[in-house]
Amino acid sequence: MYVIIVYDVGVERLNKVRIFLKQYLNWVQNSVLEGELTKAEYFKIQSHLKQLINKDEDSIFIYRVKDYKYLEFDELGTRPIEIDTII
Amino acid sequence: MYVIIVYDVGVERLNKVRIFLKQYLNWVQNSVLEGELTKAEYFKIQSHLKQLINKDEDSIFIYRVKDYKYLEFDELGTRPIEIDTII
Repeated sequence: MYVIIVYDVGVERLNKVRIFLKQYLNWVQNSVLEGELTKAEYFKIQSHLKQLINKDEDSIFIYRVKDYKYLEFDELGTRPIEIDTII
Repeated sequence: MYVIIVYDVGVERLNKVRIFLKQYLNWVQNSVLEGELTKAEYFKIQSHLKQLINKDEDSIFIYRVKDYKYLEFDELGTRPIEIDTII
């Protein structure tokens, strides 16, 4: 499956969430990662994210398509430099 | 078509972009809107966004599926309160 994850989490949990997700997905924009996942990876990620976030304050959206071919994509502007590379 | 737009734009352009997109799409998370669009609306949005953003500093991603049925969705945590309602 192809997955897009968009997160809006408290500053104190931002790095943990990003570093965890980057093990499986590509960072593409501030707070957005995407990539191909197996079902096992998907359930693992979902479960671990639940532990990392504060469920009353944070919000994580996970969009999925069975196959990348169902997804079309356009991009405007400039892809930002990854935060890791400037910190 | 069903569209998800994720934006990362400079603070000075944030309101303009959000207010414009909210005419067509539902605000669902900080910097994320989604909804059903006609082709005409889609091209209008794309064209107007190009005028609103600074192409060297901002980044807008537009994900599209032909039909909502191709898209699966999971949500963790709490959906944030819309910014407009607290400003």
